[in-house]
Parts: sequence; C-alpha cells; structure tokens
Amino acid sequence: MDIYESSLALHAKLRGKLAVQPLVKVDGRQALSNAYTPGVAAPCKAIAADPAAAYTYTRKWNTVAVVSDGSAVLGLGNIGGLAGLPVMEGKSLLFKEFADIDSVPIVLSGQDEDDIVRAVEMIAPTFGGINLEDICAPKCFSVEKKLKERLDIPVFHDDQHGTAIVVTAALFNALGVCGKRMEEAKIVICGAGSAGIAICRLLLESGARDIVMADRQGLVAEGEPWLTSAQAEIAKRTNRGRLRGALVDAVAGADVFIGVSAPKQLTRAMVESMAEKPVVFAMANPEPEIYPDEAAAGGAYVVGTGRSDFPNQINNLLAFPGVFRGALDVRARDISEGMKVAAARALASLVEAPSREYVIPSPFDRRVAPAVAKAVAEQAKREGLARIE
Amino acid sequence: MDIYESSLALHAKLRGKLAVQPLVKVDGRQALSNAYTPGVAAPCKAIAADPAAAYTYTRKWNTVAVVSDGSAVLGLGNIGGLAGLPVMEGKSLLFKEFADIDSVPIVLSGQDEDDIVRAVEMIAPTFGGINLEDICAPKCFSVEKKLKERLDIPVFHDDQHGTAIVVTAALFNALGVCGKRMEEAKIVICGAGSAGIAICRLLLESGARDIVMADRQGLVAEGEPWLTSAQAEIAKRTNRGRLRGALVDAVAGADVFIGVSAPKQLTRAMVESMAEKPVVFAMANPEPEIYPDEAAAGGAYVVGTGRSDFPNQINNLLAFPGVFRGALDVRARDISEGMKVAAARALASLVEAPSREYVIPSPFDRRVAPAVAKAVAEQAKREGLARIE
Repeated sequence: MDIYESSLALHAKLRGKLAVQPLVKVDGRQALSNAYTPGVAAPCKAIAADPAAAYTYTRKWNTVAVVSDGSAVLGLGNIGGLAGLPVMEGKSLLFKEFADIDSVPIVLSGQDEDDIVRAVEMIAPTFGGINLEDICAPKCFSVEKKLKERLDIPVFHDDQHGTAIVVTAALFNALGVCGKRMEEAKIVICGAGSAGIAICRLLLESGARDIVMADRQGLVAEGEPWLTSAQAEIAKRTNRGRLRGALVDAVAGADVFIGVSAPKQLTRAMVESMAEKPVVFAMANPEPEIYPDEAAAGGAYVVGTGRSDFPNQINNLLAFPGVFRGALDVRARDISEGMKVAAARALASLVEAPSREYVIPSPFDRRVAPAVAKAVAEQAKREGLARIE
Repeated sequence: MDIYESSLALHAKLRGKLAVQPLVKVDGRQALSNAYTPGVAAPCKAIAADPAAAYTYTRKWNTVAVVSDGSAVLGLGNIGGLAGLPVMEGKSLLFKEFADIDSVPIVLSGQDEDDIVRAVEMIAPTFGGINLEDICAPKCFSVEKKLKERLDIPVFHDDQHGTAIVVTAALFNALGVCGKRMEEAKIVICGAGSAGIAICRLLLESGARDIVMADRQGLVAEGEPWLTSAQAEIAKRTNRGRLRGALVDAVAGADVFIGVSAPKQLTRAMVESMAEKPVVFAMANPEPEIYPDEAAAGGAYVVGTGRSDFPNQINNLLAFPGVFRGALDVRARDISEGMKVAAARALASLVEAPSREYVIPSPFDRRVAPAVAKAVAEQAKREGLARIE
C-alpha cells in the first residue's frame, strides 16, 4: 500500500481529523444555567461593554481559522474549497499538535477576491487569527493585503510567509556553514509566484542585497512586459544589474539557488556554474528542481529540499504553529515583517552546530514552536503590535 | 453568588467552552505523510472527482455552524456578534453534549442581510448544516429563506423552529390532558415576532385551524396597516373571523394561550375569561407573561413556561440536537415543515402518561435526542430529502 492508499484508508476510517472537545460538562440544570441561559448573559454583557473581554470569556484568544478557496492546493491546483478540506483539517491538526492552538478549517464556495475578503471579514470576530491557505497568486497578495488593513487580528498566508521564514532560517545557517554573509550573497530564486516573492521580500528584510528572480518567461527585471503587478513591485528591489535572459544566466556565479518552481529546473551543469560552495534549496514538491545527489555531484555544498527523505527538510511546519502561538500569546494586531525575521532567526539559532547536512531543525523537534513563539511575541512587543505584555 | 456571578467566574476560568480535539496523533514522519502531505492529496482528489466524498473523508458529515450576527441575543437585544459569542459557544457545547455533533460558533462582524447570506454561503462547504441563532426579525426570515434556496445542506433558525417544535409537542400532550383536539382548539399566540410566527406555522401544519396572533399594536388581522410582511402573510391563514382589538378580546373563550412576548401580558382575569380547562404556555424569559400560580388561580388547567423552576419547561434544547442529528444522519438537503412536525410528535410521544404537570420531557431526558433524530431522519427519507438511506 503506497502513501496515497494508506492516507485514503486513514481518512475513510477517521471520517475527519478533528472533533469538538467540550471543556465543561452540561449534565444538569445548574451546569446549564452557568454555561448557557440564563447565566451566559453575564459574559455577553461584559463583552458588549468591552470587546477585549472576548479574550477572557470565550475561546477567541486561542482560535485560528484556516481559510481556503482551494484555488492552489498542494500540487493539485485549483480543486476548489470543498476538495481542499482534507488539507485544511490537516493544517488545523498540526496547529493543535504543535502549538495547542484550536484551529477551525473554513473552506469557501466562491473564489472571487472580494467575496473572499468580505467573507473572512464577516467571520473574523470569532477568531484570534486568520491563516490563509492554498489561495492562488496574484489573488493571495491582494486578499491578504486587504484583510490586514481591515482586521485587528493577525492575517498570515502560510504558503507565502511560512515558506519564507523557514527558507530564511535555513539560509542563515547554510551561509554560515559556507563562510558567507547574507549581505554579500548572490541569490537566485526560481519561481516568482507567491512563495518566491515572499521569500524574496523576507530575504531583503533579513539583509540580502543581491537577488535575481526567475519565472517561466525569464528573469524578473524592471520593464519586462510580462511581469504581474507583484513581480513588477519586487523588480524594483531585485536584479539591479538588469540581467535579462533565462535561469541559466542568473545561476552562473550565484552563491544560492532557491527553487519553488517545478521539477528538473536545475541541472548538474548549472550547479557547476555557480560560485564556490554554493547552496541549493530545491523545494518543488514532490519532485525537486534537482535531486540532492545530482546537486552534490555538481558541487553544491549545502542542499535542502521540501522532502522528509533527504537532509535539511524545509518544511512550513517549522514556522506557522510557533508564529501564531506567539502572536496569540500577546494578542498581536498583525504579523509584521520584523516578526517573521525574528521567527527565522529563532529557528536558525536552534541548530547549535550547523553543518552541511543540518542547517534547519527537524519538524519534530519539540523546541521549535516555543522558541519561535517567544521570538515572535517579543518582536511584537518591540514593535508596539502586542495588546498585552 | 448569583447565577450571573457564577457564570462569569466559570467563563473566566474556562476561557472558552470548547476546544479542538485531534482525532489522530501526528507524532512522526509517517503520521504526517498520512494525515497531511503528501498523502492527503488522495482524499482531496477523491472529493474533487465526487463532492459527496467529502462526507466520507472529512468531518463535514458531523459539523454544524452556529451562526449569529448578535442582533437579537437572549433578552439582551442587539449586542453584536462578538458579544454573542458566549451564547454561540454554549449552543455548540449543547450540540456536542446532547447529540455528539461537532459544532463551530461563527459570529459575524456585519448585520446586513445580504452580507450575512453571502458569508454563510461562502463558508457553507465546510459544514453539514447551518444553525442560525439570535438573528432579529424580520431579517431572520429572509436570511433563512435565501440560504435554504441556495444551499444543499439544512439551514435552521433555532429561535423560530426549535421553539415551534417544542411548543407543538407540548400542546399535543396538553390538549390530550384537557380532552381537546388540535383541529378544534381556539389558540391565541401573544407575540408576532419570529418565534410566534414560526409556532403559528407549525401549529397550522400540525392540524390547528383557529389561531389568532397578537402583537404590541393589537391583533394580527388581514389589512391592518402596521403588519410586517411576515405578519401579513400569516394573517391570510389566521384570525379568519377578522377579530380586531387587543389581546384581551382574543383570549376570551380561547382554549390555548401561547406567550412569546413580554412579562405580565396575561392577567388572572384574562385566564378566567378563557374556555374550560385552558392551556397557558407563558414563555417570556426570564419573567413569564403570567406566573404559574396566578394562571392556576385563574383556572388554567395546564401551565408551561420557559423556566426550569416550574413544571413543563418548554426548552429549545429538546429540539435542536435531535433535529440536526437526524438531518445529518441521512445527509438531508433541508429541514422541512414535515420533519419539524415529526420531531414534535416524537417529542410528545416520549411522555407515556401525560398529566397536567408533565406534558413535555425534561431537557435532561437522554431518550429525547435519539427519538427526535430517528423521527426526523425517517421523515426526510419519506419526503425524498435524504441523500443516504
């Protein structure tokens, strides 16, 4: 039985990966009067008088919605919200398992940008945070931007920022292993979609100065007619040498290759053309841009993938539980770029002695979520985004 | 410490009455691959190919949203969605406790009718049913009507239909105790809001032929200029004698008084003016239209209230868990009037020997939800509303 067969069997047996756990037993009139009518009028009145009291008297303080329209699910593409529900339940399961966050999957029937924004805005009072998931680009940018403007709780598109945080953390350590610095590294990002652009932004925020992005049509450069608006924006801060051409041109002499694109984009010959001790993070899933043995044969010094069967697995699971735990703990209004960098630095620092095959903690390292949460909460306080100390 | 103080203390201690319960442990790579990526692609594909598979591979089959805009919460009025969250959490708790349904509170930031409809429509794929709660009239009618038209899962406004089912059940037995029949009873309903109108509709569906409704401005009669559209519609099927005037005029000679209005609407003298062996259900909360001792002094033969400290407590808790359990069990597309009548009959029949002080089961009678669920499921099948046998 392969993993798909065994997963299908597991899902059929469980019939859903989450249930509701009551925290109080309603087994008699007294309990009913306390948990429901008439007693419940008291917390209702308290919240009506002071909305912040919702964090005291309800589960809002620990509840995160995992919202998806199913427009970009795993490698499956646009399968719609309903078909994406097993992923969202899985995500909620991980929130609970790794950060004790109560998370509710919410899959949407519509995929219109304004409808998504309005629906999330409508249901937001219920939640302490919103995790957007598997929403396609460029819609994911504008949905997140609008929601961040309108809501006073954190909104976080994990496909962008979770990936960006983990890549940044791994790169801090990988560059250290190679004896290089973020500020001087020549970095190529292959795949200028939502994950690629988020990685680029966070690397810039973390000190990187020389990044070239590549997409199917070629290198992202100011003035290219095919750029999306998000690509046009990032073009102002990358590829300052106005390099034009294909991926192969950018990779020559680069210190770092970061792939969030498709299988087989990077060849052994291209790795051979990179600078000394190059870093290759090939994260296309399940088949990477280049397999680790091939990359190593081409001279890659540190190699990471998205897969669990090779060293240096770059897995979102290392970020989102701790990021939301930290944000919820201080009732952060937002998750800022600074908070993401803090998460990346905390994650990187958990690897005491980085080496070629160990630049990022294991997803099952139980120190991860608390360490990330602590760093995120502290940064939120520093930036004045925390509502409690 | 009164009930409000003890409830506030309980809520502050619990910080939310529900949590998420994971149904599978993700404690290693194999578990992660099965519950999440890459294995989860298999159930996703199965649902993309056949949406009904969502009932097999996710928790949709057992999940109900409790949705409120907080525009008519308990006796508190329009306190908004957030302040209503303790009630919605309580409701979800009762769904779990009494019918093992996983229910998610969803409180809304907006109160516009179209916004509510669109938001619920957007999040609906996640759920097997939608319980609307504490939405004010007349908005509750149109919101429910539109959602019933647009969604293929049950939509049920409990404030209307839960109350109607329990009142109908209690009245079946009360009339039996009095030796009267629904078809011949002269019934007055005081309070022509959402609950009153729903009660009226369900009683008509259950055989009642002579109902007069009263509201603050007087008796609901065809042509009255002050009628809302819902009242105008019900006026075509009630008060066929075109009685005009006040509550006191309708009550004289009536067999049944049903109050869903305000304290002190019914006097002892008015009860004395009723027919022989009158039934009085005075359900205003917490203070009824008339207290039971006063009603009895006026000659009331069977008296019910919404309170737990008097006999014959007419409590929604007797209906909604079983109604949704039954609807979910057969994946009903809708909850029809026939299914509500079936629920009322099942509820009534649980009282083996009805008497003046026992016309309706206790809310803690554990036979209730399964009996109601069975009746609702069977009726759904009879009406062709069930998607599984």
